[in-house]
Amino acid sequence: MNGRLLITCPDRHGIVAAVAGFLAGSGANIITSDQHSTDPEGGEFFMRMEFTLEQGDLSALGRAFGQEVGDRLDMRWRLTDGGRPKRMAILVSKEDHCLVDLLWRHRRGELDADIALVASNHPDHRADVEGFGIPYHHVPYPNEPELLELLNDVDLVVLARYMRILSGGFLTTLDTPVINIHHSFLPAFAGANPYQRAFERGVKIIGATAHYVTEELDAGPIIEQDVARVSHREHAETMVRLGRDIERTVLARAVKWHLEDRVLVHGNRTVVF
Amino acid sequence: MNGRLLITCPDRHGIVAAVAGFLAGSGANIITSDQHSTDPEGGEFFMRMEFTLEQGDLSALGRAFGQEVGDRLDMRWRLTDGGRPKRMAILVSKEDHCLVDLLWRHRRGELDADIALVASNHPDHRADVEGFGIPYHHVPYPNEPELLELLNDVDLVVLARYMRILSGGFLTTLDTPVINIHHSFLPAFAGANPYQRAFERGVKIIGATAHYVTEELDAGPIIEQDVARVSHREHAETMVRLGRDIERTVLARAVKWHLEDRVLVHGNRTVVF
Amino acid sequence: MNGRLLITCPDRHGIVAAVAGFLAGSGANIITSDQHSTDPEGGEFFMRMEFTLEQGDLSALGRAFGQEVGDRLDMRWRLTDGGRPKRMAILVSKEDHCLVDLLWRHRRGELDADIALVASNHPDHRADVEGFGIPYHHVPYPNEPELLELLNDVDLVVLARYMRILSGGFLTTLDTPVINIHHSFLPAFAGANPYQRAFERGVKIIGATAHYVTEELDAGPIIEQDVARVSHREHAETMVRLGRDIERTVLARAVKWHLEDRVLVHGNRTVVF
Amino acid sequence: MNGRLLITCPDRHGIVAAVAGFLAGSGANIITSDQHSTDPEGGEFFMRMEFTLEQGDLSALGRAFGQEVGDRLDMRWRLTDGGRPKRMAILVSKEDHCLVDLLWRHRRGELDADIALVASNHPDHRADVEGFGIPYHHVPYPNEPELLELLNDVDLVVLARYMRILSGGFLTTLDTPVINIHHSFLPAFAGANPYQRAFERGVKIIGATAHYVTEELDAGPIIEQDVARVSHREHAETMVRLGRDIERTVLARAVKWHLEDRVLVHGNRTVVF
Repeated sequence: MNGRLLITCPDRHGIVAAVAGFLAGSGANIITSDQHSTDPEGGEFFMRMEFTLEQGDLSALGRAFGQEVGDRLDMRWRLTDGGRPKRMAILVSKEDHCLVDLLWRHRRGELDADIALVASNHPDHRADVEGFGIPYHHVPYPNEPELLELLNDVDLVVLARYMRILSGGFLTTLDTPVINIHHSFLPAFAGANPYQRAFERGVKIIGATAHYVTEELDAGPIIEQDVARVSHREHAETMVRLGRDIERTVLARAVKWHLEDRVLVHGNRTVVF
Repeated sequence: MNGRLLITCPDRHGIVAAVAGFLAGSGANIITSDQHSTDPEGGEFFMRMEFTLEQGDLSALGRAFGQEVGDRLDMRWRLTDGGRPKRMAILVSKEDHCLVDLLWRHRRGELDADIALVASNHPDHRADVEGFGIPYHHVPYPNEPELLELLNDVDLVVLARYMRILSGGFLTTLDTPVINIHHSFLPAFAGANPYQRAFERGVKIIGATAHYVTEELDAGPIIEQDVARVSHREHAETMVRLGRDIERTVLARAVKWHLEDRVLVHGNRTVVF
Repeated sequence: MNGRLLITCPDRHGIVAAVAGFLAGSGANIITSDQHSTDPEGGEFFMRMEFTLEQGDLSALGRAFGQEVGDRLDMRWRLTDGGRPKRMAILVSKEDHCLVDLLWRHRRGELDADIALVASNHPDHRADVEGFGIPYHHVPYPNEPELLELLNDVDLVVLARYMRILSGGFLTTLDTPVINIHHSFLPAFAGANPYQRAFERGVKIIGATAHYVTEELDAGPIIEQDVARVSHREHAETMVRLGRDIERTVLARAVKWHLEDRVLVHGNRTVVF
Repeated sequence: MNGRLLITCPDRHGIVAAVAGFLAGSGANIITSDQHSTDPEGGEFFMRMEFTLEQGDLSALGRAFGQEVGDRLDMRWRLTDGGRPKRMAILVSKEDHCLVDLLWRHRRGELDADIALVASNHPDHRADVEGFGIPYHHVPYPNEPELLELLNDVDLVVLARYMRILSGGFLTTLDTPVINIHHSFLPAFAGANPYQRAFERGVKIIGATAHYVTEELDAGPIIEQDVARVSHREHAETMVRLGRDIERTVLARAVKWHLEDRVLVHGNRTVVF
């Protein structure tokens, strides 16, 4: 049995010793451990430990952890079962490069998830998606009630170039992490038509940003970014083509890290272990 | 004798043939040629040709070119002498990494310029600059009249982390290209304290931008940009340190390209050959 | 009608003028022009011009060019029709990431080619390939005679992680350009198991190399390379996964450039315009 | 008081708990902790902990650690005082870009070291080095006995483009870590003239490698590497210029990490925390 323990708490003396001591005393064998402190004096402390547990069960371990360690050290923590893939849904509009890349990576075993469904405001991708054995739902816009029903029991929603804005009410009701890929190196070119605007501004580097979705458009915590060089030779249209390669890679990394419980959110920033 | 011919004109049939034919007929031997068209139908055409001229002089060649080719094809063009280094001045405030890097590169022969002077609103860099045999002027802020006098006969002004805003009136009177290094990947984080703001936004990539200065702050034509990865481990202060390496490299490239007459400005964009 | 003229010849005065003059005089409108000289004095000169021709045909233009310009200036040259996609075949073994990426890019219109067939020493990819409407041939190793028959009328062969060595006799008989993707930054780790050997050497950067195939293994002219960072955390197996993203991108770029007649071979080096 | 504890040992249950428990029980406050295991079952375990100690002294703490933890868990470990800068010597030949970059970074406070001396087989850099207040020794080749005397009490030797091979006997007698910068992405182009050979092989990427020096030339454990793109336009000489920027950055990173006790050597590989 493989467990992942994620902790956020005020930094203070003895946290590592307390957690590692608890796990060792519970028969858990720590495989990897990462920690970060914004400031050893009065800062915020983050930790991720991955461990194996040869006997016993994770929920009992979690209850004991909360009582013996978590409460005492003011921790927000969660314990996940590394052997249980998350249920993931993908939303997409016209552009299919991020969708297809996620489906292929999943088939190659790179993404440890169950892809429950793909939903789109366009009918176009049905054959491709069903070819991977995954249900495809065409939900024409406006579609928030239908989406809420479809997404009702998933652990993660991925916006793989889904070009409709999700309302604050939708996000609140959904109450599930949503990862979006934005086709610029945010905060530059938030909003619509980023490649066109990048072209007009004459930048020499374009990029893409994967972030958690919050009510404020393109302003949520950034998980990953990457860039590519462009020159005066590129039009907005060739930027679109070059950008596809960055978008799909950046989104795939962010989704993989989320699925492996490597991302902790802190205010509007992320810690990625 | 080494000449560089830079041309901007409406695209149409026969431009390359006309220019190459003129140069061949004048005894000039083309060494490199670069061209770019925003659109072969009705677009803007840019060209840079570098050539050697075994006899004759460049100004006669230029006059003939204007009469025989330039006027007929509605060209804006300039012809520079590759054997005459440009006179360059450097303005700097407290941070010396860009200044020092330019001075060393110049000493190693990487920058084909005469560095006429360094001026600063701080007294600190005198010993370093004079150690390179270059005059240092301490001109405490406000200093625009003194600067105008000092910069009166230079071909290029480089702001190597000069932290004072130059007024529109100053730029107009100066009437000389000014290259600035901004410590963010513009248009993200224009204005003050970009590393602090990058930290607060939680970006995973920081950058630097070299651009021509216009009256609108941090909005002039971009010449070069580059970036570096950061993680949650970086504070704003470590970003400052990492950023220095990008800033000095990006600025040095932009200055080198300008000195070699490789940069053409087109609206708010640049063509870099 | 869209033509591409590629030229290699000894550098000398007047080449650009001669070629541009000929094209202008023939009613061709130059869209892009690139040139490179290894040395203006006694070096080798390379040029690629892309042009439109409103009337007349390309083969007549070619004949005239040879007589009026090519022969006189000792040029090796070729003239291709930009409107005629090349016929391309893909060879693949077990790993499908490069294959699939080429098929998707082709479907999205990024690769201007007719994919005539996919052949493999493994049966596994039939369903995927036929799903794209492309014939799949399973040719178990040894298979050179069968391959020669299949590849008999293609313009380009792409080895998309084809793990069998092609004999010198095969290459001579085939007499068609072959592009291979090697999973290291050549010349480091030529030959088998490059990721394992990269792991053992403890490198901090892994890469991939697309090159033309010659009889000497992994030693042909390099078209494109790219790299990614690794750390002590990566095993050989995670390098394999990270490497897939580089391999597919590097191969796709090299294939695209070849299809657009941007690559000139010069000894064991390439000029990529 | 700031301590750094570095540990290598066979992986087994309870290591983190034992170390963290010991430190917490000794009044030490862990600031950062990094660990790596090559394999949780039977692999090698590496750890670096940085901590503050409000009272007591580090050597007493070290003795207690050895007795209570280190011996029991078969650890090789070292405990260093983060408040004591290492004594560092720089060897250099003709090329000064790495030397000058280290001196400037040191002056800016980026490198926590005492630079004891610079030694060279050339006399050229005396004025520059002494301008930084650092002793300069001209030791013409052959010079190993003189060097051994000069380097007799330093903690680290940096070869900042020192172009003479150090003998095995020298390294054994010196018995101090030596970091070298090699101007290629090793293992490609080990040995002499790497840029010329990179040019001849026609690579599209050049690089630099910082590594610990061992008796076998250019084969020691790699600490850091980086790369830059080149095209057919670069000659070997322009590669040399572009390479300088990579060499100085890569060397500075490796030196900084070593000075901060972030590098553990394991066979011919490094773990860099």
